[in-house]
Parts: sequence; structure tokens; C-alpha cells
Amino acid sequence: MIHDTTIAAPATGGGLSAIAVIRVSGPDAFTIVDKCFKGKSRKKLSDHAANTIHFGEIVARDTSIDEVLVSVFKGPKSFTGEDTLEISCHGSVYIQQQILTVLYASGAVPAKPGEFTQRAFLNGKMDLSQAEAVADLIASENKASHELAFKQLRGGYSDQIKQLREQLMNFAALIELELDFSGEDVEFADRSMLKALVDHTLIVINKLRESFALGNALKNGIAVTIAGRPNAGKSTLLNALLNEERAIVSHLPGTTRDTVEDTLVIDGICFRFIDTAGLRDTKDEIETIGIERSYAKIKEAEIVLYLFDTLEMFQSEVENDIELLKDKTGSTKLIIPVGNKTDQLHKTPQEQFKELNDVSWISAKENKGIEELKERLHKYVNIGFTSKDETIVTNARHADALGRAASNLVTVKQGLTSQITSDFLAIDIRAAIYALSEITGQVTSDDLLAVIFGKFCIGK
Amino acid sequence: MIHDTTIAAPATGGGLSAIAVIRVSGPDAFTIVDKCFKGKSRKKLSDHAANTIHFGEIVARDTSIDEVLVSVFKGPKSFTGEDTLEISCHGSVYIQQQILTVLYASGAVPAKPGEFTQRAFLNGKMDLSQAEAVADLIASENKASHELAFKQLRGGYSDQIKQLREQLMNFAALIELELDFSGEDVEFADRSMLKALVDHTLIVINKLRESFALGNALKNGIAVTIAGRPNAGKSTLLNALLNEERAIVSHLPGTTRDTVEDTLVIDGICFRFIDTAGLRDTKDEIETIGIERSYAKIKEAEIVLYLFDTLEMFQSEVENDIELLKDKTGSTKLIIPVGNKTDQLHKTPQEQFKELNDVSWISAKENKGIEELKERLHKYVNIGFTSKDETIVTNARHADALGRAASNLVTVKQGLTSQITSDFLAIDIRAAIYALSEITGQVTSDDLLAVIFGKFCIGK
Repeated sequence: MIHDTTIAAPATGGGLSAIAVIRVSGPDAFTIVDKCFKGKSRKKLSDHAANTIHFGEIVARDTSIDEVLVSVFKGPKSFTGEDTLEISCHGSVYIQQQILTVLYASGAVPAKPGEFTQRAFLNGKMDLSQAEAVADLIASENKASHELAFKQLRGGYSDQIKQLREQLMNFAALIELELDFSGEDVEFADRSMLKALVDHTLIVINKLRESFALGNALKNGIAVTIAGRPNAGKSTLLNALLNEERAIVSHLPGTTRDTVEDTLVIDGICFRFIDTAGLRDTKDEIETIGIERSYAKIKEAEIVLYLFDTLEMFQSEVENDIELLKDKTGSTKLIIPVGNKTDQLHKTPQEQFKELNDVSWISAKENKGIEELKERLHKYVNIGFTSKDETIVTNARHADALGRAASNLVTVKQGLTSQITSDFLAIDIRAAIYALSEITGQVTSDDLLAVIFGKFCIGK
Repeated sequence: MIHDTTIAAPATGGGLSAIAVIRVSGPDAFTIVDKCFKGKSRKKLSDHAANTIHFGEIVARDTSIDEVLVSVFKGPKSFTGEDTLEISCHGSVYIQQQILTVLYASGAVPAKPGEFTQRAFLNGKMDLSQAEAVADLIASENKASHELAFKQLRGGYSDQIKQLREQLMNFAALIELELDFSGEDVEFADRSMLKALVDHTLIVINKLRESFALGNALKNGIAVTIAGRPNAGKSTLLNALLNEERAIVSHLPGTTRDTVEDTLVIDGICFRFIDTAGLRDTKDEIETIGIERSYAKIKEAEIVLYLFDTLEMFQSEVENDIELLKDKTGSTKLIIPVGNKTDQLHKTPQEQFKELNDVSWISAKENKGIEELKERLHKYVNIGFTSKDETIVTNARHADALGRAASNLVTVKQGLTSQITSDFLAIDIRAAIYALSEITGQVTSDDLLAVIFGKFCIGK
């Protein structure tokens, strides 16, 4: 047992509810709860088998507070790895407070945010990336973010990282051994094998780093800007995209209207739609600022819907606009041309704009072509996502650590080329190892843990 | 088993939280959950002992939704009296919805509000007044309302009512037997014993009915109006009463500022403070209406704080005001005279107002005498409350049923005096019995159950 305190906190949500659960974990969990629990049998809770449930009352100074069920978990076979009791009481805030008051008076201390999970991590029940997945899982709001978090909870790429780290450790050890024999000219670590390992490691790490753009977007929603000239119908398109789904989203408990206003979950993937000011050539200074802002927003987005009015625009103008967008925002971004108001065209849009390819033809007002556009958006993201064996990094901290590991490994590579001495080589390898270890938590600082677990909710 | 459906619903509060609990209850609870639960052991959940907890995953079409703990309860030894499973999952709304979706697809139906408790009642696990206590317990926000609800949950006066009902039933049966022999002049039921029983029952019932005023006030908060002439310092007093406590109340989870604005819990008892317009003699028509409204509010209150400015008022004026208040609002109401601004008096208030008794002397601005006033309020209510053997009715439905029982018994008494025939006597006794039976739910209608359980939260 690493901890000598026993912590307690409510583990379920606020407000009135049928039941609420209070968690108690630590070396004195049984002693503390036994002090205030009167079960039907005269047995102490610690005398019951693990993973059993017991009916009784929580009593404070001879006054019953509530009829409860107490679930018994015994360390190390519990979530935290410690003795843990879960008290299931009636879902009144007052009752929960009374029970907590009794527990605190009996020796428990209030749990800090994430402290249960932190103990699970420190007791070796999960690595740090798994612990982080617990918070992501709780926060998950759609299929994609849920799947990614659940994958990470089950281990994710921890094993991959651990394996790379171990191989680097072996080399580092050999190189450090050379230092002990620095008088003699020995070379325990085969430099060409080391170079091959570093190359391989860099490939793996860079692939993981690249996946972060998608991972982060899937977790927080894929940013989609709607760009186009004034009156192209951007707001109408936004409404058409959001409207039907909005009703479905808003009846879900816990989701409030203002958080879903601009996001849309298409078949499990969350998109964040960002409306922009109309784009056009102008000499007006103020308007120019507005347009520059639009370009900045467009730059941040993963996908740009370029909307144009099929009644007003010539093919060449559309092509020019798209070229301009590419120039201004970087050519790698996906730009989907969307032709609006096709219901009012006399010809088919394909006839009117013969040489434009890959256009989504819609009528935002008549709600035509909207479903197809959604499918197109979903398909684009889903290609990256559904290759299930692909590991996707969703955590900014991991992406940062991977970045540092990569830059250290690049230094190692340069060192190998320029044949620097073993001691410098060892330092750079150790730095890379350190960065990788941070991901799974094989090395941690108290500060880091405070940051990670401080983001958790109380009771987890 | 009365029900052939198996119901499922979340039992814990909304929002992000460490864990959430989903309840499944009914004849197919095991079959349904076994379809989507993959535990570590190959055993079916129904093969596990009752009151045990099992780790595993909820799986939908080969995709894992979450790692969960499932608590196994077997009917009739469960809350509902049916087979019940509680699935403890991560506290994400999305995950809960996914799990519920799987459960519904596997044959469960969404539980209606209070349906778990309704089943507990219908399966004979508790009587109706106990079932109602479950809702009261969940809604309890302070010591007094909590204690009353908990007492009722444990049986309360159900036994008392049941006993009275049974005694009346015996007489009713005997009287109805007389009807079978209506040709002959027999009298199985001893009329003088019946009269004694009716008298005794009326005493008990009326005592219970009288307790409802206090019970209802304790449950919903004791109404206290602050009355007095303009500028007596009513708002300052209100602030002084609320201020310190308000900070304490508002940091509690689930309590929002706007609900505590005007209520104050003094040592476990809730008071609702009602500010009123200033009272004074006036010819102004509009002002008169305002003052009449104040009197109406004062009438509704259990306690009136009559506040006067010790710098402005003569003793005779204070006495006149109090007399007027008594006239206007009924003399039985407790009126507490409160003399304000005593910090600015040159003499002690006791010297200044020699013949006024039982005044609370305060300075609202300087926060003097406020604690003593609170203690006085608490003491007044607590005298009625702390005589713990006293039964207190808190439920308006019970008070109503008791009222009908009483009026029927009065009719029985009159019938006995005027020696009406057995058949009419039997009808009146049956009516009284019916009213009493409604309290414990020995007779119920679907409508009544719908009203009672419709007020519950989902999942209870």
C-alpha cells in the first residue's frame, strides 16, 4: 500500500436521483465504514467475501441516516487496488452529505479529483495512458470519441511504446557500460543495429504523431468551416446541416442546447461547423479585417466547405475562389466545393459547370443534397478512422511526449553519423526514453500527476 | 410475479460523473443482461449467488461498450421483489445511452418514473406510505424533512392505521352479517363497543390530522413573514438572517442560489422567509391593496416576525400594531415582536419599552441579536418536533384521506345516536375503512398509483 489515508467521495452525478454511490478506498476503508454501518448480520464488513453486497443502515450517533447497500471490494482486486467500499444510498444531496460527514468523522479524508484513478495508477492497476483514458471515456459524447477512449483504456499503444522503450533501454545500458571502460576502446553496443532501431522507432513514433491530428479532431470534433461569397447561402446550409439532428441531440439527458448549437454527430463522428463572414475582394479596410479573420478560421479547420451560388457564379470564378482558398490556407487542406440553389437552375448543374469536378450539388433551402453532403463528410473522416488496427493518438500530452522523443532520436541519429562519444549518445537516448516513459507513466513527477488527475471529476 | 415486462433505466444523476448505475428489473432481467454481458467467468449471471458483484464488459454486436460491474439481486430478496441487476458503468451520458439501447434491443422496456418503487409496492415489499417516503427521502434537503421521511420509510404510522382499520373491519363484518339475517331482529355488533371504537379512532385520526400542519411545514419549510411599518428594517433583517448561512448552503452540490434565496435551515429545520410590504394606516387606494396583500401573506405564514423601529415607535403604537395583526390574521398565530435599531438607542430597549414582553431586541444592521432570534425560531418549531414518539403526518394525500375517514366516522357516530339501520351504518364504516386503506395502499386505483409514482424520478 502506497497510501496511508483512506479517501471518500460521491461517485455519481449531482441532483435528485434514485440512488447515489459514495466510494471509500484505502487501508482503513473497512474500519471506517464498519464504525457507521449496521448490517443485518452481526458480521463486520471485512469478514464478508469480496465482491458481495450487504444491506443495512448508516448510523451516526444512534440516528439512522439511510438504508443502504454496501458493496465490498478487497485490495488488490479492486479498481484502486486498495480495500474499497461503495455505499449505495438514496439520491438526496442531504443524505450524501450526512454520510460523508460520518465517514470523515470516522477517519476518511475527502478525495481529490481523480484520486481513485490516481491510486489505481500508483498501485499498478493501470498505466498512465489508461488512467487518462478513464477521464476521456467519461467525457465521451459520441461513437468515435468513445471508441478511441475505450481502446486506450484497454491498453491502446502502451505496449508498443513500452516495447520501443525497452529496446532503447537495452542499448542505453550497453552504451553506459562502455563508459565504465572509457579508458579502453570497447564498443558493446553495435552502432549499426542502434541506428536501425532508431530509424524504426522514429517511423513508429512519427506515424503516431501524425495520427494525432485526426485523433484530436475525433475527440474534440472535426472542424469544418463554411466559406464562400456573401449570399451564397452559408447560414441556410448550416441550418440545413444542423436542423434535423439537433432535435435528436437535444432530447439526450446531459446535453444542453448551447453546446450542440454548432456541432453535428454524423454516424458517430462529431463535426464542429464554423460559419465565416463572406469572402470577396474589397477595398474596405474594416471588411478586409473580417475577411482575414475568416481565412484564419479556415486555416484552423480540417475541412472547408466552399459554398457558391450556382445562379450567380461563372465556372471560372468558382475555380479562382478555390485557388485563392488553397493559396491562403495551405493546399493540403480538404476543400469540398458545394454548389447551392440548384433548384432554381434551368439546366442541371453538371451542364452549367461542365469542368468542375467533385462538386456537391445542393439546395440548402429545399434541403436537397444535404444528406449526400453529410455522407461525403463522414466518409472522408471515416477512412482514416475505420482502419481499426491503426493506432490513433488522441491525447495532446502524448503527442507532445512523442514529439520530444522524436527530436531526441533525431539527435541520436546525428550523433551516430558524426560519431560523438558514448556519454553524449547515452544522454540523448536517455532523453528519448524519458519522453516515452512519460506516456505510460513509467516515469512521472508529482506535478505531472497533479495536472493529469486534476482534470478528473471528484469520485473517480 | 405481477409484471411480465422487464424495465430498465438509469438510477443515478445526470452529468459527467465517475460512475453511473443502470437498473434492470423484471422476470427477464437475467436473460436480457446475459445477452450483452461478457464476464470473466463463463458462468451466466443467473448462476451466480445473489448479492454478488461481477466484472465484465457490455458488448453490442461484438463491440465493447464499457467495462462494468454488475450487481446481482434475486427476487424476492431485492428492492422491487423481482430479479434485479444493477450495471455500474463509467459516468458518460453516451455510454449510458448505448447500454440502455442494447438493453432495450434485448427485450427490456424503459421504466416509467417511480416504476421500480411501484413494483416494490405491488410485490408487497412496502406499503404505499413507505413507497411515498422513498420519494420524500430523495427530495429531503435538511435534517427535519429527512428524519420525517426516514421514519415513514421504516413504517411510520402505517401499523397504527392498519390496526384501526382492522378493528373497524371486524365491526363492519359483524354488521354486514346482521344484514343476512335482516328478517330477524339480531345484533351481532355491540353498538356501545362500536361507539367506543369510533371515538377512539377519531381521537387518533384527529391527532394525526393536526400534526399535518407541522409536518407539511417541516417538509416544505416553515413559513415566516416579516411584517412591520415601512423602514422598520425588514429587508436588512432578512439579509442578516440569510447572509451567513447562504454562503454555507450555496457551496453544496445540487443546491442552486435561486432556491436558497429565501430559505434558511436553522439547525436542521427549514424556514421560508417572506418579506412583505410595509404596514400602515393609509387612505391611498393602491397602497391599501398592497397592505391587504401583506395581510394575506401573513395569514398563510406559521410565524410572524413583527418588526418595529425602536427609535420611531412608542410602546402603545407597538401594542396597537400587534393587536391589529392578531385581528387581521387570527389570534392563534405566533407573533414574535422584534425591536430593531437598538444600537442607536440611548437607553436599553428594556427601559424604553418597559411593558412589552417577549420582544427580541436586535440591530439588523450590526448583526446583533440575530443568532438569538434564530434560536428562538428554532426552539418554537422544535418543541413540536422533538417529541420523537409523536407521529407527524407530512403527506397531503394522507391528510386528505384522514380527513375523509374522520368525516365518515362522525357520520357513523351520528348514525349510532339516531339508531339508523345496519345497512346504512355498514356503508359509512366501509367508507371510513376505504379512506384509511388508501393511506397504506391496501386499496388503490390505477389512477392513484399513476399520480403517486408519476411524481418520482426515473430509475427509482
